[in-house]
Amino acid sequence: MTNQRLQQQIAFVIEIDRLKTVLRQTQLMDGSRRENSAEHSWHLAMMTLALADYAPAGVDMQQALHQVLIHDLVEIDAGDTFCYDAQAHLDKAEREQRAADRIFGLLPQADSDRLRQIWEEFEAQSTPTARFAAALDRIQPLLHNWQTGGGTWKQHGICRAQVLRRMAPVETGAPELWPFVLGVIEDCVNAGCLRP
Amino acid sequence: MTNQRLQQQIAFVIEIDRLKTVLRQTQLMDGSRRENSAEHSWHLAMMTLALADYAPAGVDMQQALHQVLIHDLVEIDAGDTFCYDAQAHLDKAEREQRAADRIFGLLPQADSDRLRQIWEEFEAQSTPTARFAAALDRIQPLLHNWQTGGGTWKQHGICRAQVLRRMAPVETGAPELWPFVLGVIEDCVNAGCLRP
Repeated sequence: MTNQRLQQQIAFVIEIDRLKTVLRQTQLMDGSRRENSAEHSWHLAMMTLALADYAPAGVDMQQALHQVLIHDLVEIDAGDTFCYDAQAHLDKAEREQRAADRIFGLLPQADSDRLRQIWEEFEAQSTPTARFAAALDRIQPLLHNWQTGGGTWKQHGICRAQVLRRMAPVETGAPELWPFVLGVIEDCVNAGCLRP
Repeated sequence: MTNQRLQQQIAFVIEIDRLKTVLRQTQLMDGSRRENSAEHSWHLAMMTLALADYAPAGVDMQQALHQVLIHDLVEIDAGDTFCYDAQAHLDKAEREQRAADRIFGLLPQADSDRLRQIWEEFEAQSTPTARFAAALDRIQPLLHNWQTGGGTWKQHGICRAQVLRRMAPVETGAPELWPFVLGVIEDCVNAGCLRP
């Protein structure tokens, strides 16, 4: 290994391979298996490119892209917390901060600070960029549940009001996409894929 | 659906979910299963962020990030072509051009042109940005084979000279990372993970 800085960066690249083994509740759109958090993050990055038109004023698209790539890294230690599991959400923030310390801490200090800052901005949800990234993170599993005829919603008996609450960040983070989200939800209720 | 443009963009976002089902020869670093092209693309995007220091002059990092996210999309139709399979490489370019016509063609014209141009730049390998992106695309499976004690190399009886030829684009695309690549290859030969 040529130098310590590169050694640390490579250790990080190797460690994050584990995100491919963190399973989400979401099914792939062909229903063949559960999605993992690495491929989910790629899908969000592609949505950032394909749906850039709908970013509100003040969104930094490059920063949004970095945020969606990094936002789930902490799940390597903290696991994926199912969005409708209130109990698991109680200590989620604490578990994720510890995970961030360890995972970003593998990198040289300057890189660690840079990547962690991207993650912290997403977590804080206080900028238009973070709110746009979070909106995409809500829309993506909606598309999966829509395409799989109810997917996770059916498995867990989720109803329209719960999905509407879960999708609320889209209304502020990507308001131009909100009518589309409402339309999908109504379609799903009408098709019997989501409890009214 | 609110309008035709959004309808096309969403159709694209739904279609590309299929990249998660395209399997590569590479094993995950824990050896549990084969890697798919969507999670591979995410890993490359993260490498773009973690190894940005090693980009030669003239590399546009944002464009490199877009290229690694998009570079394998055509595999949805064309499949992943194993890098040491000479036969399958004969019609690879033609299969991938047809795939690009269909997949990028799902998007509204302006988006289609924009994303396809990113893919074409990667394919042409005529800019420092494309060559840096390609270098990362070579290093990533090297790390996997290293971490899995020879992985794909052992399965297919690959030898050092073949890996050196396969890795050659790193020498031009990311010359600062070339000594690291040579070191890993020698480590693998010495450890009996790669035929001399």
